[in-house]
Amino acid sequence: MNIDLNSDLGESFGAWRMGDDAAMLDVVSSANVACGFHAGDPAGILATLRAAAARGVTVGAHVSYPDLAGFGRRNMDMASSDLRAAVIYQIGALQGLAAAAGTRVRYVKPHGALYNFIAHDERQAQDVIAAVRAIDASLALVVLAGSPLTGWARAAGLRTVAEAFADRGYRPDGSLVPRSQPGAVLHDPAAVAQRMARLVRDGTVTADDGSTVCIEAQSICLHGDSPGAVAMARALRERLLAEGVTIRSFVEAEEGVPA
Amino acid sequence: MNIDLNSDLGESFGAWRMGDDAAMLDVVSSANVACGFHAGDPAGILATLRAAAARGVTVGAHVSYPDLAGFGRRNMDMASSDLRAAVIYQIGALQGLAAAAGTRVRYVKPHGALYNFIAHDERQAQDVIAAVRAIDASLALVVLAGSPLTGWARAAGLRTVAEAFADRGYRPDGSLVPRSQPGAVLHDPAAVAQRMARLVRDGTVTADDGSTVCIEAQSICLHGDSPGAVAMARALRERLLAEGVTIRSFVEAEEGVPA
Amino acid sequence: MNIDLNSDLGESFGAWRMGDDAAMLDVVSSANVACGFHAGDPAGILATLRAAAARGVTVGAHVSYPDLAGFGRRNMDMASSDLRAAVIYQIGALQGLAAAAGTRVRYVKPHGALYNFIAHDERQAQDVIAAVRAIDASLALVVLAGSPLTGWARAAGLRTVAEAFADRGYRPDGSLVPRSQPGAVLHDPAAVAQRMARLVRDGTVTADDGSTVCIEAQSICLHGDSPGAVAMARALRERLLAEGVTIRSFVEAEEGVPA
Amino acid sequence: MNIDLNSDLGESFGAWRMGDDAAMLDVVSSANVACGFHAGDPAGILATLRAAAARGVTVGAHVSYPDLAGFGRRNMDMASSDLRAAVIYQIGALQGLAAAAGTRVRYVKPHGALYNFIAHDERQAQDVIAAVRAIDASLALVVLAGSPLTGWARAAGLRTVAEAFADRGYRPDGSLVPRSQPGAVLHDPAAVAQRMARLVRDGTVTADDGSTVCIEAQSICLHGDSPGAVAMARALRERLLAEGVTIRSFVEAEEGVPA
Repeated sequence: MNIDLNSDLGESFGAWRMGDDAAMLDVVSSANVACGFHAGDPAGILATLRAAAARGVTVGAHVSYPDLAGFGRRNMDMASSDLRAAVIYQIGALQGLAAAAGTRVRYVKPHGALYNFIAHDERQAQDVIAAVRAIDASLALVVLAGSPLTGWARAAGLRTVAEAFADRGYRPDGSLVPRSQPGAVLHDPAAVAQRMARLVRDGTVTADDGSTVCIEAQSICLHGDSPGAVAMARALRERLLAEGVTIRSFVEAEEGVPA
Repeated sequence: MNIDLNSDLGESFGAWRMGDDAAMLDVVSSANVACGFHAGDPAGILATLRAAAARGVTVGAHVSYPDLAGFGRRNMDMASSDLRAAVIYQIGALQGLAAAAGTRVRYVKPHGALYNFIAHDERQAQDVIAAVRAIDASLALVVLAGSPLTGWARAAGLRTVAEAFADRGYRPDGSLVPRSQPGAVLHDPAAVAQRMARLVRDGTVTADDGSTVCIEAQSICLHGDSPGAVAMARALRERLLAEGVTIRSFVEAEEGVPA
Repeated sequence: MNIDLNSDLGESFGAWRMGDDAAMLDVVSSANVACGFHAGDPAGILATLRAAAARGVTVGAHVSYPDLAGFGRRNMDMASSDLRAAVIYQIGALQGLAAAAGTRVRYVKPHGALYNFIAHDERQAQDVIAAVRAIDASLALVVLAGSPLTGWARAAGLRTVAEAFADRGYRPDGSLVPRSQPGAVLHDPAAVAQRMARLVRDGTVTADDGSTVCIEAQSICLHGDSPGAVAMARALRERLLAEGVTIRSFVEAEEGVPA
Repeated sequence: MNIDLNSDLGESFGAWRMGDDAAMLDVVSSANVACGFHAGDPAGILATLRAAAARGVTVGAHVSYPDLAGFGRRNMDMASSDLRAAVIYQIGALQGLAAAAGTRVRYVKPHGALYNFIAHDERQAQDVIAAVRAIDASLALVVLAGSPLTGWARAAGLRTVAEAFADRGYRPDGSLVPRSQPGAVLHDPAAVAQRMARLVRDGTVTADDGSTVCIEAQSICLHGDSPGAVAMARALRERLLAEGVTIRSFVEAEEGVPA
């Protein structure tokens, strides 16, 4: 049994700190590294990339709408030419910094509003897909498990990696419980760990109505932006290891790298 | 006789236009393309790169201090870690867009205040040099002919390309006449063309005191941000061609590409 | 007969020029001055305010989403707390610069995507209304003639000023012909001038289907961002003067200032 | 005995937190509120202003170079026209938000690199002085005790308020021990409280060579950007109150408001 654990890193900006990258890099196998559009200044990104390289953590480009003030969490109706070029620009910038850090970018994960929007909006989804293909068609695209984006990306020839969210509730149809509703976010580390262990073992989680829902995921997204989040991430990792699960990046899994 | 002609391009930003990239790409052999820190948005940069690729014009990264409001023309005392990472970030971003445009970045030319400052400030110069080496040590660095930067870059193993300025006056010691003084900027296209033809042929220009000064340059920088500038650039190109000079990028010249 | 002519000014940014503020200030009676969020840097804004003050042109705050790269033309789903504070911030900044220029801000006109969106979206409309009231409830709000925003603003106690667009086509219901359709933008200066003269005289324009539509407007918006636009604005002004129309700001008209 | 305590507040930005504004507003009598150029987004600034208004804490504009990525800590050689307009813009923006919060801006305190640079650089100092005078000549200017800026500001007719730094070492000439040297920053809350109590009582501190130096200050600057800093600020306040010192803003002190 294999699973990848990913987390959003490199999200400090100038004098402002966010998250505990060092702690999370000891937990995850994949680091979604900010590219400067929602978070991350070049020097901070470079430091995170070096730390990821030192630990052998796989690196992905966490691309976003250009919106530092809104942390990439606000929808923006960017024109296709702008969105495509913005995604390429960010991946390229991270590739450059990754080269300087002795590693390289292996996948792309859209951030925040862009992630949520392209999960179901085909126009912007095709823009992101075209951007990834234009700069490096071998990059994988991390997608919300079960989202229409998966099909669009595969049809265009991109590798996709479906992810589940460790601390989010699911509805019977496999979609996330919206944040505005009860049960959207789970807070008990032990329950989350047990839940994800089952996901890895059986490919199922319990939905918010008590039913069982299938979630096909090659990666689990963990948050690391609070002390509680780091503790939950560690508990999850320990539980998976105790159950005999191998934690390694989907890139290595696909390439047949021995665990 | 060979010479490279270079110009600053891709300097529009969003709704704001600057320069006539299409016109200048018919004149120059090397395009210093903005990387988003002093000018250039991703979509505009990409369009310029595509136009350069279509004409076979060599592309360089026109890296800058992060200062859109000041167009990169204001000195900033950036820490070394910030400056290095900022330069890598910009080169990487342009590399990504260049890949999407079917071309690639062959050299780096610092812009504005950064260009002027590192011509003689060793700390920031070493930062830029380290940044170029960290991302791709095969990139050439365009430097002010005769500046101390040349030696620092060569000592670090970088290729350097010395450039002269077509429309600037020179002092007897080979430095530029400061913009605050008379004779700093030349306005007569025919005189500029004749002056540069002599530079290419003999390696000399007439200084502002009438003396002859040697300028060893592999490239000539042309401006294109006004109708008059484009006309001057065209006149210069015609004159050089009429004198039998081959205009091609220093990259091709070094690689022995037939003109 | 009175009418106000307004135009968007102060939209240069750093090294990038836009529009011909000096020319347009000789045509209009009200200047919608950029506040730095979609365009305008502080020094450029201040220069435009001084020029407006020198000519006795009334000043309004041209507030926008925070989006320099998109020139405020992209929808953004800002939270109410962010949108309100952003509008207050911009008005305050312009008030400060206006004080330094010897004038003061008399009205607010939302720009671009914000203008179009709040014409019919009540949540963001109420945010803008609340913001104007919070900083100075005596400021007038310029609104699209016939839009729902008018009623919401008046219900909240704000003065509203309805505007028509000189060079835009209208549909029979009084709405603008969308830019994606033929007839959206009118290009003939003489026809535009005649059309607006009729609007001032009769309160009607010819819709795109040939029918007559009533447009109740106290101000006409003119563009000034191209040589042709300036010429059209001048032609319109001349035509109105020739017809005996008094061109003065709605603020002065309401305050009974003799023309 | 009276003293003002001031602190830098409103320095969060978007998703990034900085400092504990609520805690510090219970300690200080004056709040230097960020204006968006080095820190502070409009909604966060507004929240801080409301909290200050609720506690009766006096508000000042903490103006900066435009440098979010560098937190206003990097020198920038801004042209006078740009610097003046930037300062006016920031003060105006804060005035607008203050009006919405039911309070008003009473003083200006330059931030970071601008603060340090204009303490001794007359060109930029005169620009800041001119800016304050242009928007509201009744605003006080907070200056480094003993700096040349004091004289320039007074000669221009501005009120000045000299400040001391609670946790900084002083040299025998009254200047601060540079941060690069030992003794620059003091860490013992009790010692700092005792030191400042003496400053308020006698107008003297012990310099880093053991000698006694006179510091004429109407305000003491406290930091609040770490848990230790808040604790030190509280200890200082308690010590001063225990010694019978009245803590109130210099504005109220000058206006004769009863404590």
